[in-house]
Amino acid sequence: MNQLGIHAFVWSGGSTQEDLNRALDRSVETGYRLIEFPRLDPKKFDVPAFARALAAQKMGIAVTMGLQAAYDVSSEDADTVARGEAVLREAVSVARDLGATKLGGILFSAHGKYMSMPSEAGRRNSIDTLRKVARYGREAGVTLNLEIVNRFETNLLNTTAQGLAFIEEIGEDNVYLHLDTFHMNIEEANPADAIRAAGDRLGYFHVGESNRGYLGAGTIDYAPIFDALLDNGYADTVTFESFSSTVVDRDLSIIAGIWRNTWDDNVALAKHAHAFITDHMESAARRRRITRTA
Amino acid sequence: MNQLGIHAFVWSGGSTQEDLNRALDRSVETGYRLIEFPRLDPKKFDVPAFARALAAQKMGIAVTMGLQAAYDVSSEDADTVARGEAVLREAVSVARDLGATKLGGILFSAHGKYMSMPSEAGRRNSIDTLRKVARYGREAGVTLNLEIVNRFETNLLNTTAQGLAFIEEIGEDNVYLHLDTFHMNIEEANPADAIRAAGDRLGYFHVGESNRGYLGAGTIDYAPIFDALLDNGYADTVTFESFSSTVVDRDLSIIAGIWRNTWDDNVALAKHAHAFITDHMESAARRRRITRTA
Amino acid sequence: MNQLGIHAFVWSGGSTQEDLNRALDRSVETGYRLIEFPRLDPKKFDVPAFARALAAQKMGIAVTMGLQAAYDVSSEDADTVARGEAVLREAVSVARDLGATKLGGILFSAHGKYMSMPSEAGRRNSIDTLRKVARYGREAGVTLNLEIVNRFETNLLNTTAQGLAFIEEIGEDNVYLHLDTFHMNIEEANPADAIRAAGDRLGYFHVGESNRGYLGAGTIDYAPIFDALLDNGYADTVTFESFSSTVVDRDLSIIAGIWRNTWDDNVALAKHAHAFITDHMESAARRRRITRTA
Amino acid sequence: MNQLGIHAFVWSGGSTQEDLNRALDRSVETGYRLIEFPRLDPKKFDVPAFARALAAQKMGIAVTMGLQAAYDVSSEDADTVARGEAVLREAVSVARDLGATKLGGILFSAHGKYMSMPSEAGRRNSIDTLRKVARYGREAGVTLNLEIVNRFETNLLNTTAQGLAFIEEIGEDNVYLHLDTFHMNIEEANPADAIRAAGDRLGYFHVGESNRGYLGAGTIDYAPIFDALLDNGYADTVTFESFSSTVVDRDLSIIAGIWRNTWDDNVALAKHAHAFITDHMESAARRRRITRTA
Repeated sequence: MNQLGIHAFVWSGGSTQEDLNRALDRSVETGYRLIEFPRLDPKKFDVPAFARALAAQKMGIAVTMGLQAAYDVSSEDADTVARGEAVLREAVSVARDLGATKLGGILFSAHGKYMSMPSEAGRRNSIDTLRKVARYGREAGVTLNLEIVNRFETNLLNTTAQGLAFIEEIGEDNVYLHLDTFHMNIEEANPADAIRAAGDRLGYFHVGESNRGYLGAGTIDYAPIFDALLDNGYADTVTFESFSSTVVDRDLSIIAGIWRNTWDDNVALAKHAHAFITDHMESAARRRRITRTA
Repeated sequence: MNQLGIHAFVWSGGSTQEDLNRALDRSVETGYRLIEFPRLDPKKFDVPAFARALAAQKMGIAVTMGLQAAYDVSSEDADTVARGEAVLREAVSVARDLGATKLGGILFSAHGKYMSMPSEAGRRNSIDTLRKVARYGREAGVTLNLEIVNRFETNLLNTTAQGLAFIEEIGEDNVYLHLDTFHMNIEEANPADAIRAAGDRLGYFHVGESNRGYLGAGTIDYAPIFDALLDNGYADTVTFESFSSTVVDRDLSIIAGIWRNTWDDNVALAKHAHAFITDHMESAARRRRITRTA
Repeated sequence: MNQLGIHAFVWSGGSTQEDLNRALDRSVETGYRLIEFPRLDPKKFDVPAFARALAAQKMGIAVTMGLQAAYDVSSEDADTVARGEAVLREAVSVARDLGATKLGGILFSAHGKYMSMPSEAGRRNSIDTLRKVARYGREAGVTLNLEIVNRFETNLLNTTAQGLAFIEEIGEDNVYLHLDTFHMNIEEANPADAIRAAGDRLGYFHVGESNRGYLGAGTIDYAPIFDALLDNGYADTVTFESFSSTVVDRDLSIIAGIWRNTWDDNVALAKHAHAFITDHMESAARRRRITRTA
Repeated sequence: MNQLGIHAFVWSGGSTQEDLNRALDRSVETGYRLIEFPRLDPKKFDVPAFARALAAQKMGIAVTMGLQAAYDVSSEDADTVARGEAVLREAVSVARDLGATKLGGILFSAHGKYMSMPSEAGRRNSIDTLRKVARYGREAGVTLNLEIVNRFETNLLNTTAQGLAFIEEIGEDNVYLHLDTFHMNIEEANPADAIRAAGDRLGYFHVGESNRGYLGAGTIDYAPIFDALLDNGYADTVTFESFSSTVVDRDLSIIAGIWRNTWDDNVALAKHAHAFITDHMESAARRRRITRTA
């Protein structure tokens, strides 16, 4: 059984010390063992204090981010790429200081709707930058996990196959895929097979519904996905992600197009997701045991 | 059995007279009975000649469009809304002159990724404008079919339920829903039930795969969708839509995020889609006959 | 939300007073509100005492049965049919005395693998007999619920459509369908549509996995089934049924072909099924609310 | 792409020379490359002539059978087992003489509804017998393919896992699994994973709908099954099987419970199945290519 994580934006779009503490407490109370924080700005909160709070609760943490356009490492502009590299290095440092071993998200391009086709030069810049950041990450004990997202949130890596080829070009062994059911539902020809294809490059996994709301209230067929996670041998964290206009981080809500309310009560949502994912993992294990045992 | 249509961008992203004629010929050759043309600019081709070509082939036509930002009828800016109304009226006229009875697409807002939440004032402007355009459409014998699209292509109408409420507020009987499997796969909690809920307000229907490529090479479960079209009693055109970077209309490709090649051979694609949709419609009819007959 | 029931054979294949009491206690402890007992022989237990026990726990009861070959009311032999009618009348009486309002199961033919085609004369005998039993049931306040089962367990009524036509020929308003997901998975072209087609003739509903084991460890797609129960407006009991060689009623195990062990721990099984069905009902309600509300 | 086969009972339940010839002709005309004949009695037709007819049409043949109770090699009665062995040897010989390389079906027990639990002694008899028949088959160039069928058609091997363990105990390398979607739909916890688990022991494959009728008019989800056949690397024949009361072999119809008419026009049925299976194989290949190629 994989450890379960939860995205902090289920609890709060803010990133003050108080926001972080509340998100941490709610995650613990609803049974999760890891919390994912996006875009942590070390100037806005006391990193060592928060690292201690996490340790005190024996909670894991993953840090994720999506680059803003001004820091797009897939740009053809050298200054933009250099700024992006600095931002990524800082994120690695913050992750390390918080005790995280994973940095995930859209690290390879801007996070948002592109209005141009990807360019080969930009792709090359992204690869070269991530190679350097990965080396820095190795010293910090932090892996890079490239989140494969849908066409409306990047123009560079929309499928697992693209991600695997990209990682091979980076050529560093601490770069992994960060897959997400919401995005796979849009882009993959076969999400389950993509998970199997990811093999030991699967580093982090998001479970999110097709419409970003309650699990089971959308179009995703979860059984083959949890079967594939077993086939893959993935033993790391599975993190629940959901967005509603009830809890707003303005930037991310706009980028992710969260125009409507899919839930109000985030405690009920988080408990449901915990039970839902747990049951799907247990059912997958049961199917496998029955299928593979005479 | 519903009549099958095909989106012209399977054939060409261009809109010259020659592009149109070629698209028409290919559609006929691959067995379709209707062609959908987006954004027809009457200054660029000979409308009466094309209407005659359609009639000569006994081909139906549907006209669709997505408003550009400068013509966004859901804007709070009166001038923008007025420009949008003019564009919509012109589209109704072109549709009428081509012999079309349907104008579909994103008629109620700009087509693209919004960077702001929808506003009540903008929504009101859109409703008021569409009421006027609908009345103009009635004289022209053209219905309006509001395409419910995903969150990355509008911020206003992402679900069938939103569309039905919007149409009720417009209050004109020639305004319908234009539903599309690609968009429903992202937004609806239950696409089949959404189709049933649409009832007699369903005016036009797009079949497109989750990743915009070959039907059956994505995540959409088509059987319940075709069952629901039967439940709905929908007897009008079902139009196949697919995009690949092989055939490019620059604007639409960027808006729709067509970053990669999902097919090269559009004749093979169109023939496959025709057989695929036909078999799914026949299977749905067979399931219904068996289920409802002792 | 429907009330949940559980089949007594999850707990015990026996029918002694002690078996019944234990089954009742376990059902209450695991959260069910109704218990289904098959083939209750009033000579083997104290009917009034058990009725009191049920009432004391505020537990509902449904009685089900499958006719043995010697009592086959679809036989062409008049004596066999007469014996069958007597058995059915007795079952109605027992049901009434226990406080049950439903008699379900294979009431219309023998329960088992037929080695001959159904005959029109036998079908007529079954209809005529059930008409009389239904009238007797009306006086007793007991409805008849004809369980539509797969081809290996009867040759007469394998589909909902056959059942509806049969009920119409009986012509009594207290005769309903007893549908079951295990059987529908084998026989129906579209289980969800069959449930919708059943309309107000749906009187009792069994949830069982395709291989008779844990829910979710088989091939049944439950989401459309629970959606269809909502569409149907079915507000009565949903009963969980599962068989394993761990708990044996010799006759039923042989008829149902329970050759292998699908579970050992029936308390874990029952709790899982309760949570599984509850979550599927809640998810269906959530999908419906989202789909039908702007 | 796998070669497609068709079961002769789509065409005729008879086994006269004329029946065989007609079945062969229809199979060729509807595009199949192999015909499966059950229970061929060499006394009833001219084996060499039929072998020549097959060769002339370049048609493959597979022979299948289900043992009758009097020949049950899983019996505890030595005489019955000995008779069964003789029947199996004869079937191997007929297969060889017809140019078949596969003998499939229920070779390991009687074909039908058992009224008793399987016994360890009977299972041992079956294994010992099949070991001898397999050795005889090796000389004849004929493999044994054990059809894993549902609980109502044997009590011995209902799942792939049981079949694999059984084959390992036989210990001969020319014994394979014969899997069938109809049976897997009832018995397997995960049909796709069962196909992957079968590995190189998968020797023959049947595609049949959940209710024995038209493909696509039942409950089977075919996409994961065809994906799994690709994963398995299975490159041999895929044979379509369907039964309707329109075409009757009395014995098999009774055993298989074919009480109702699922089709009348077998040419239309066969053409549909050919197109259906071909499209599903092509779609699976397309999904795999997309998923595995950047």
